[in-house]
Formats: sequence, C-alpha cells, structure tokens
Amino acid sequence: MTSKRLPDVDCAVAQALGVVGDLWSLMVLRNVFNGMHTFAALQDNLGVSSSVLSARLKTLCAAKVLVRQAATGDARSFEYHLTECGQDLYPVLIALMQWGEKWLPSQRGKRLTLIEKRSGKAILGARVLAQDGRVLKPRDVKVLPGPGIDPAFHALMTRTPAK
Amino acid sequence: MTSKRLPDVDCAVAQALGVVGDLWSLMVLRNVFNGMHTFAALQDNLGVSSSVLSARLKTLCAAKVLVRQAATGDARSFEYHLTECGQDLYPVLIALMQWGEKWLPSQRGKRLTLIEKRSGKAILGARVLAQDGRVLKPRDVKVLPGPGIDPAFHALMTRTPAK
Repeated sequence: MTSKRLPDVDCAVAQALGVVGDLWSLMVLRNVFNGMHTFAALQDNLGVSSSVLSARLKTLCAAKVLVRQAATGDARSFEYHLTECGQDLYPVLIALMQWGEKWLPSQRGKRLTLIEKRSGKAILGARVLAQDGRVLKPRDVKVLPGPGIDPAFHALMTRTPAK
Repeated sequence: MTSKRLPDVDCAVAQALGVVGDLWSLMVLRNVFNGMHTFAALQDNLGVSSSVLSARLKTLCAAKVLVRQAATGDARSFEYHLTECGQDLYPVLIALMQWGEKWLPSQRGKRLTLIEKRSGKAILGARVLAQDGRVLKPRDVKVLPGPGIDPAFHALMTRTPAK
C-alpha cells in the first residue's frame, strides 16, 4: 500500500516509529508504564493473541526498550521491565494520552488522571521546553539541519520556507 | 493478525493512535510542522503514492488535525495547515524526534537540531511537568482511574500493582 518502507527513511521520527510506531507496541508500553509486567496481565488487558504479543515483546526487547527478567519470588516466570531507553519514552506516552483525553474524550468522562505522588495534584503533562524550562510553542522553534540529515528532506525544507 | 481493532479500545492513548498512530500520518504531520504545506512538497519528500497521501490528508482533515485552505496568492491550489488540535500534537512529535535522535542516531551525526528562534540555543525537548513546572519521572506519577475508564483496564490495574 505504501511505496517506501518507513524505517528506511533517515529521520529521527521515522526511526523512532520503526520501533514504537506499531500500535500494539505502544499499548504494551502504556501497560508496562502502568505496572503490568507479566505476559498474562498484558494479554488479558489487550485481548491480543499470544503470537502477536510474543512478537511485540520480542521486538521491544531486541530494541532494548524492555528487558525480560525472572519474576521476583518465582524464578520460573518472567517479567518485562523498562530499560533506561524505554523510560525515555515516557514523554511520548504522556503526550499521546493528554492529546487523546483533550481531543477525543470518552462520553463517560475522564478515563485517567495523572497525579504527582508527592503532592497528589494533577500533573501539567508533556510540554516542549527551552533549556531554562520555559514552555515553547511550535512557532518559537526552528529546525536546523545537522550532518546526519537526509539530503532529500533538507532540499524540501529549504525549498518550502516555514510559515 | 490482531484480535481486537485498536480504536475500539477505550483508552486515551488508543484513541489518539487511532488518528495519528498511522506511521504515514505522523510523517505528514512532521513535515507540516516543518513548513511543508502543499500536496506536491509532501509527496516529493515522503515518496508515497498520491492515493496513500490523499487518504492520509483526508483522514487528518476529517479529524480536524489539519485544515485544507486556498494557497496564499493562488486560489486554485490548496495548502494544509495545522488546527489548534493539530498544534497540540507538537509534544508528541518532539518527544518521538528526541527519542529517535538519542537512541537510534544516524551514523553521520545529528540529523536535526531544534533551536529556540529568539535565543538561538538548542531546546531542552519534551518533558513531563508538574503544575509548577518541575520535570517529573515515571516513578513520580500515579495514574488514577476516572469515570470514563475501561472497566477491564481498571480491573487489571488494581490486580497488578505498579512497581
């Protein structure tokens, strides 16, 4: 259906999507962030077949997003935990969650509220920040090409000025 | 291949992915954020067929993420621009971009640097914030169910305590 396979595109977003752009993979990560670490809990919640879930977990472990380790107190069973690389996906998940809650709400009300444990207050959510912590809008930010940029993408960027 | 179609899952992340989880849709949005507003520029850059690009643009306009309007200075041609709903996807895109740059770098070096126009300095990137602007880690945040939560998801959350 598409004329170019996405992970071949040399762009940071495309490369990221090559690993976590699969919808089921992101749903697996959402659940691991929410404390579900076993194959059974993930399968129950997502309602996917064993083969689909196995494949996604294998891909996420191969990409070093998750690590499989013996379960606490039961060396015969396994748990899936986030690596540092996986933890770094937290802003992606939170950004998707807040966008879905705001623009595609449930008719029954808020699905989830994210609170800070220490204060019990709702969090602000994912934002794009300057080095000094100020929140930035798209219009405040400019994209500069680096040595690793895809030449075709750079040509298009310079041909079509940002508006 | 999957036993449940994703947009049927009543979760903010799943709902968001139902609209922007398609890989090509996110690549289209990346390019619109980077100043590409015409069908021709988007197609040149992504190398997709007209039919695939048309379908994605139609979906993004139907979801009110993009709006199609007459091009400035040429009423016969059209441009695609971000709505307020589309602008709100900025943290999602930046979070994916920074993760891809950090964990799946190009061998030729950085692909892009995002700088603040006003200061010329590199931005910090997407972070999860408390109401007072402090940056939060996954372990600082707790998920509380609201009235709109999927009962099956809630049952699993309470059965498997967060670790």
